[in-house]
Amino acid sequence: MDQGDIRPGEVRVEAPEAADAVLRFIGTIRTPWTVRADCRRSGDAEHGPVCRIEVFEPWVAALAGIERHDRLELLYWMHQARRDLVLQSPRSGGTIGTFTLRSPVRPNPIATAIVRLVEVEGASVLVRGLDCLDGTPLLDIKPDHPRG
Amino acid sequence: MDQGDIRPGEVRVEAPEAADAVLRFIGTIRTPWTVRADCRRSGDAEHGPVCRIEVFEPWVAALAGIERHDRLELLYWMHQARRDLVLQSPRSGGTIGTFTLRSPVRPNPIATAIVRLVEVEGASVLVRGLDCLDGTPLLDIKPDHPRG
Repeated sequence: MDQGDIRPGEVRVEAPEAADAVLRFIGTIRTPWTVRADCRRSGDAEHGPVCRIEVFEPWVAALAGIERHDRLELLYWMHQARRDLVLQSPRSGGTIGTFTLRSPVRPNPIATAIVRLVEVEGASVLVRGLDCLDGTPLLDIKPDHPRG
Repeated sequence: MDQGDIRPGEVRVEAPEAADAVLRFIGTIRTPWTVRADCRRSGDAEHGPVCRIEVFEPWVAALAGIERHDRLELLYWMHQARRDLVLQSPRSGGTIGTFTLRSPVRPNPIATAIVRLVEVEGASVLVRGLDCLDGTPLLDIKPDHPRG
């Protein structure tokens, strides 16, 4: 979203400086989508296209054993999203609080996705279930939540 | 974990500076646990104790509509965790890659938890299902993942 683009009903705030903690990007996500309009609304871990997670050094060793997990949780940084809206007006209608949406627009634009592991190829992990832009910075890989 | 404390088999790396993106804390999580040893291994969204999420201004307005969601995803910052291990030796045995564990020790110590909403009280949200320290910084609140 263009930083100046606000829809009717949306409310922006003067957000405090983002300076409480710092992140390091640990990889890059390769997907078929190069512009936001082409991205899916949500990933499909069963039938979606295979995407490549490229892990940077010195973190490649941290993949040891990853092939034992069928489902992974990925965290990544939605680097194009504005961070100052508290109310949003989705295209589906209505105006609603940011914490009631999974929109990229949020105070800390961290996405989480549950994906299916397809294959590990050295420093890369192939998965299905993503919906993000090509070149999205990777923050973390974990096994999926334990489900009770 | 004490920053100097490494178990047999664990491998630390010279991690690059964490400076690719910045976070702002948007609230505080109140739980019954004040030391790491008391924290559960994982939260229980059905029978766990009720914990209080206190949202800071100017983000309180972003809670609008949250009560419609039974299950929420919370993201928070594990501020006491070291960030430089690629192989870890859990107490359960063996040595395994960091990305194969949900341990707090990881290059970007962001936790994700699926919790059950109990009640909204003004700027606070009461939930079950957390396992973190009292005073943990909050990063985000989202509806749970759509599950296919």
